[in-house]
Amino acid sequence: MGTLRIPDVVPSPTEDCETLRKAFKGLGTNEKSVISVLGHRTAIQRKKIRETYQQLYNRSLVDDIFSELSGDFRKAVVLWTYEPSERDARLANEALRSRNRTITQLQVIVEIACASSPDHLVAVRQAYCGLFNCSLEEDIAANVPMPVQKILIGLVRSYRYDKELVDPSTANAEAAILREAIRTKQLDCDNFITILGTRNVHQLRATFECYKQNYGFSIDQDIKSRGKGLLEPILKVVIWCIDSPEKHFAEVVRASIVGLGTDEDSLTRAIVTRAEVDMMKVRGEYFMENKTSLDNAVIGDTSGDYMKFLMTLLGAKV
Amino acid sequence: MGTLRIPDVVPSPTEDCETLRKAFKGLGTNEKSVISVLGHRTAIQRKKIRETYQQLYNRSLVDDIFSELSGDFRKAVVLWTYEPSERDARLANEALRSRNRTITQLQVIVEIACASSPDHLVAVRQAYCGLFNCSLEEDIAANVPMPVQKILIGLVRSYRYDKELVDPSTANAEAAILREAIRTKQLDCDNFITILGTRNVHQLRATFECYKQNYGFSIDQDIKSRGKGLLEPILKVVIWCIDSPEKHFAEVVRASIVGLGTDEDSLTRAIVTRAEVDMMKVRGEYFMENKTSLDNAVIGDTSGDYMKFLMTLLGAKV
Repeated sequence: MGTLRIPDVVPSPTEDCETLRKAFKGLGTNEKSVISVLGHRTAIQRKKIRETYQQLYNRSLVDDIFSELSGDFRKAVVLWTYEPSERDARLANEALRSRNRTITQLQVIVEIACASSPDHLVAVRQAYCGLFNCSLEEDIAANVPMPVQKILIGLVRSYRYDKELVDPSTANAEAAILREAIRTKQLDCDNFITILGTRNVHQLRATFECYKQNYGFSIDQDIKSRGKGLLEPILKVVIWCIDSPEKHFAEVVRASIVGLGTDEDSLTRAIVTRAEVDMMKVRGEYFMENKTSLDNAVIGDTSGDYMKFLMTLLGAKV
Repeated sequence: MGTLRIPDVVPSPTEDCETLRKAFKGLGTNEKSVISVLGHRTAIQRKKIRETYQQLYNRSLVDDIFSELSGDFRKAVVLWTYEPSERDARLANEALRSRNRTITQLQVIVEIACASSPDHLVAVRQAYCGLFNCSLEEDIAANVPMPVQKILIGLVRSYRYDKELVDPSTANAEAAILREAIRTKQLDCDNFITILGTRNVHQLRATFECYKQNYGFSIDQDIKSRGKGLLEPILKVVIWCIDSPEKHFAEVVRASIVGLGTDEDSLTRAIVTRAEVDMMKVRGEYFMENKTSLDNAVIGDTSGDYMKFLMTLLGAKV
């Protein structure tokens, strides 16, 4: 369940476009209007607003937002306004083009591959080809070294069965295969990747549960204990995104604000991508792990229109 | 270019449905009517006919065809009437459930993965999940032994960039990688599969051309000379389906009728799946290779309504 709040009576796309256009016109921008419109509309409603804006003014809404807003606020509103598949294709591309391709960047790709629906993942791959003149997996192959490359390609190419169908004996057998790969540090072997990249998430959750019962460790703990490269933390993100995306995104938020300074890109991404999906659960998970509310954490680490926009997506009345 | 002939004035879907319903009614079936309607309609028109039939009579057109027709004729008309993605999902499933999973069966999966558009392949994977309670790649993993399994999974998971964009230096570099894998008989190594499973077909054609120029053999000949298992013929089909689908399908037709008896399933599949795609080219290729026409071959090896239906799809007036 998301945290996005939609008014009982939603203005027509034309009315919303007029409000936005008015907010952009003249000197300065009425940021409050932008937040009050876009921060309270679903993905389908935002799509209609984009299309209507283009028809009414022969201008791109995203381009206008880009030229009217600035800083982290701009980045958050732009990401929120894109079609979700285009948004994720752009996030993946940015991660692959980044000079630091550490876990902080590359986990974006894992999130898209493992914490989205199969149809969304396919839509992202289609959008990627349309935007960047090559496939997502070609760009991964060109920019990410082995063995992480092999894991990421294996995951983004998945199209998982999406109904809740679990075979307990498969869970048991595949827990043993995963265990053997981890024990022998063959974390990029074909069996390992085929299981993580083709099984449906419900089946995998059962497999991870078997793993814990049979071997006494959770699979992510077991992976963590085997090495300190980039592969182990990537696989931890894989396991979490499959097993409990809310736990993963609560951790993204925590990591983005911990210590001095804030990683606004990660914070924005977590809230923008999950506000309509499972932000209620992310918030609950955050509270359980950190004994403080996610909302307070966001308020403490951000400010101005950026804060107001994130808080709006989190369901606050700002 | 396909061979399917559409009349200048196409009856409405309702008229077509009435003709079909009349053909099915009473004792016996008017096969001629069935051929004259369905054998002259595009995929989109057939889809509308299916939907209209369901609305008008609250019956499934495919089910009615199944109960009214018989033998190879029935199988051909049923395959032709399915949504193409569902047809291919069912063909793939049949291949995987078959007791003989030889090259004759498994090449169906290669055709879907390598001789279809990226969007069609995705649609087949979606249809597969909807029909068979697991993903296509899970069924390949469960039914096909290594190393062919790894090749097939690598191919069906592709979503290739589909514009004509070729980088000559990549072609040269990747020809060398492919050559090294073939020379050392590592035909299932990750590099090999990543190249064949992620590059766009235009790039791969350039790579195969480089291969021939640099090493003096075409890549399929070179693969063939390395062994006699199931892997080598599967890879030959992969290369042909990417390099020249019309050559592959001309060969499927030739193999289906050569010698005593006919492999009707393969013959039907080749004609039904390519009649709207590139059957003109397949026919040209067939003539070049066999010095006799594909149409004469079909007439010589089939008979009755089955022959009439195939010939209709091949553009003949029967």
